[in-house]
Amino acid sequence: MLTSGTLDARCGARVFLKAEPFQRGGSFKFRGAYNRLSLLDADEKARGIVAYSSGNHGAAVALAASLLGIHAVVVVPQTGSPAKLAAIAGYGAEIRRYDPATESREEVAAAIAAERSLTVIRPFDDYDIMAGQGTVGVELAEQAGELDLVLVPVGGGGLAAGVGTAVKSLLPGAAVIGVEPAGADDTSRSMRAGHRVRLDVVDTIADGLRAQAPGELTFPINQRLLDDVVTVAEAAIVDAMLFSFARLKVVVEPSGATTLAALLTGAVRAHGQRVAAVLSGGNIDPADFALLAAPRLPG
Amino acid sequence: MLTSGTLDARCGARVFLKAEPFQRGGSFKFRGAYNRLSLLDADEKARGIVAYSSGNHGAAVALAASLLGIHAVVVVPQTGSPAKLAAIAGYGAEIRRYDPATESREEVAAAIAAERSLTVIRPFDDYDIMAGQGTVGVELAEQAGELDLVLVPVGGGGLAAGVGTAVKSLLPGAAVIGVEPAGADDTSRSMRAGHRVRLDVVDTIADGLRAQAPGELTFPINQRLLDDVVTVAEAAIVDAMLFSFARLKVVVEPSGATTLAALLTGAVRAHGQRVAAVLSGGNIDPADFALLAAPRLPG
Repeated sequence: MLTSGTLDARCGARVFLKAEPFQRGGSFKFRGAYNRLSLLDADEKARGIVAYSSGNHGAAVALAASLLGIHAVVVVPQTGSPAKLAAIAGYGAEIRRYDPATESREEVAAAIAAERSLTVIRPFDDYDIMAGQGTVGVELAEQAGELDLVLVPVGGGGLAAGVGTAVKSLLPGAAVIGVEPAGADDTSRSMRAGHRVRLDVVDTIADGLRAQAPGELTFPINQRLLDDVVTVAEAAIVDAMLFSFARLKVVVEPSGATTLAALLTGAVRAHGQRVAAVLSGGNIDPADFALLAAPRLPG
Repeated sequence: MLTSGTLDARCGARVFLKAEPFQRGGSFKFRGAYNRLSLLDADEKARGIVAYSSGNHGAAVALAASLLGIHAVVVVPQTGSPAKLAAIAGYGAEIRRYDPATESREEVAAAIAAERSLTVIRPFDDYDIMAGQGTVGVELAEQAGELDLVLVPVGGGGLAAGVGTAVKSLLPGAAVIGVEPAGADDTSRSMRAGHRVRLDVVDTIADGLRAQAPGELTFPINQRLLDDVVTVAEAAIVDAMLFSFARLKVVVEPSGATTLAALLTGAVRAHGQRVAAVLSGGNIDPADFALLAAPRLPG
C-alpha cells in the first residue's frame, strides 16, 4: 500500500493506494486467473485452457498457466497491440488470432474449447475468478486497518464483487464505491435500473473497463454490496495517470487510474475519511502514455 | 525492494531494486538532507539554512526543513524547470534566483549565508549528508540479505560513499560498483588517475549526476570502497527508463536509471549473482519523459 502526503492534502483525507501495477503480470487479473487455474482438476489441467482477451486477462491467464504447467490458448484480435501480444506469447501461451470485424471472440474460444476439450477461462463472470480478485480486498483491509471508504474500478464487475465481498466481511463499516468511466457506465445504469443494462456503444480509453454490460454472476453481488457507483470523465482519468506519474512515481493504466480520478475530482467526497483506492493495473505502453498525456500537459 | 522476473531472466541474476522514487520528495536526497538538518544545534536551527540546487537536493532540503520547522532559502537558476521550482516552493522554502550565465551558485549562497547567518547545506561533500544517504545501504543489506554486487549511481559521490560505507561494513563480501553516465565520467577518470579530475564539459540527460569533479570529502572514501566505476551511454539510460516504465511500473529519472542501464547492457556482468541496484530517484516531468522516450520507441 502506498501513501502520499500530497494526495492526502489534496483530498483532505488519509488515502491508502493498493498498487496492483506491481502485481505479477502488471494487474490484479493474475489473482483471479491463478486461483481459477489452480482449482482445475488434474484432468482439466492436463487438457489445457482457453481464454479470450488481448489485455490483462490474457496476460494473467498465460502467466498463471505457465507457472502451473498448463497449456494455454489465448484468443486475441488481429488488431491487438503488438506489445501486449508479445507479453502473452512471452509467457508461453499459444496465440490464436481472430478478426473482430467478422468473428466473436467468445465463439472462437468456444469452438477451440470444443474441438480440443479445453476449459474456457472467462474474464470475470466466474466465482473462482471473483474470489481471486477478492484477495485485493483482504489485503487492503489487513494493511490499512479501519476504513471509511473503499474505491474500486468496475468493468465486468469481478474485481468489485471480490473486493466488495472481502471488505463487507472484514470491515463492515466501510462503504464500497465502484468507479466507471462515463463512457462505459453500464454498471451505474444497471444499478439505477435495477437490472442489467447493455450499452450499445462503449467509448473510453480505459480498455480494461470496456464491458458493455455487467456480468450475469457479478451484477447481483455488486447490486447487494456496492454502496454507490460513480463515473469519471476521460480527461480526469488522464490527469490521474499524470498525477500518479509525477507524484506517486507509479505507472498506472487508464482503467487503474479511475479511482484516483474519482478522488482528485471530488466525484467521491473523501474529506476527513480513511480511504483505500485500488489502482488496478499499470499496463500501458510508454508511447500510448505519451500520446494520452500530450494534450493535458502544460506548454 | 522490488524484484522482477523479467529483469532476472534478462540478467541471469537475482536482482533487488532499491526504489528511491518512493522516498519522500521522490529521491534518496531526503535522507541526507534530513540527517544533516536534524543534527544542527538549536541556534543553527533558529537562524535557518541555505542550499543551492534546482533539483532533488533543493527539494529534499526544503522538505526536511519544513518538517523540522527550519527556515530554508534555496538558490535556484533563473532557467530552472518551473515544475521543480514549484515543488521547492510548495515545501515552503524561500526561493532565491540567480543568473547561471553571470553568477556562481556557491557564491550567491555563501553571500546569503554570511549576510543572514545561515548554515550552508552542501549537496554531497558533507559527512552528515553521506551518512544519511548511507541508510540506503543499511536498508538494502537488511532487506536483500547476502549480496554479491551492489550498484549505485555516482554524481558528486555522496550516495556512493554512504552506501559503500554501509555495505562494506554489513556485507563485507559484496562488491560495490559505481555507475556514471559516459558524459559525466569524472569519478571513473579520477579513479584511474588516482586523484580528482575535473571535467571541462559535462553532457548528460542525467541531471542529478552532472558533477564536474568528485567531492573533496567523498572521493577518498569512494577511492577506498568502490570496487569499480563503470559508465553507461545516454541511449542505454533512456532504454532503462523505458524498461522500468513498461516492466517495473516505476517512474525513474535518468540519474536513477543508470544502475539498471548497467545491468541491462551488461556494462556490469551479473550472471549467476545476487545483485542490489539503487534506483536513486523518480523526479521527471511527464513531458520530459515523453520527449526523451519518443526517439527510442518503435513506430
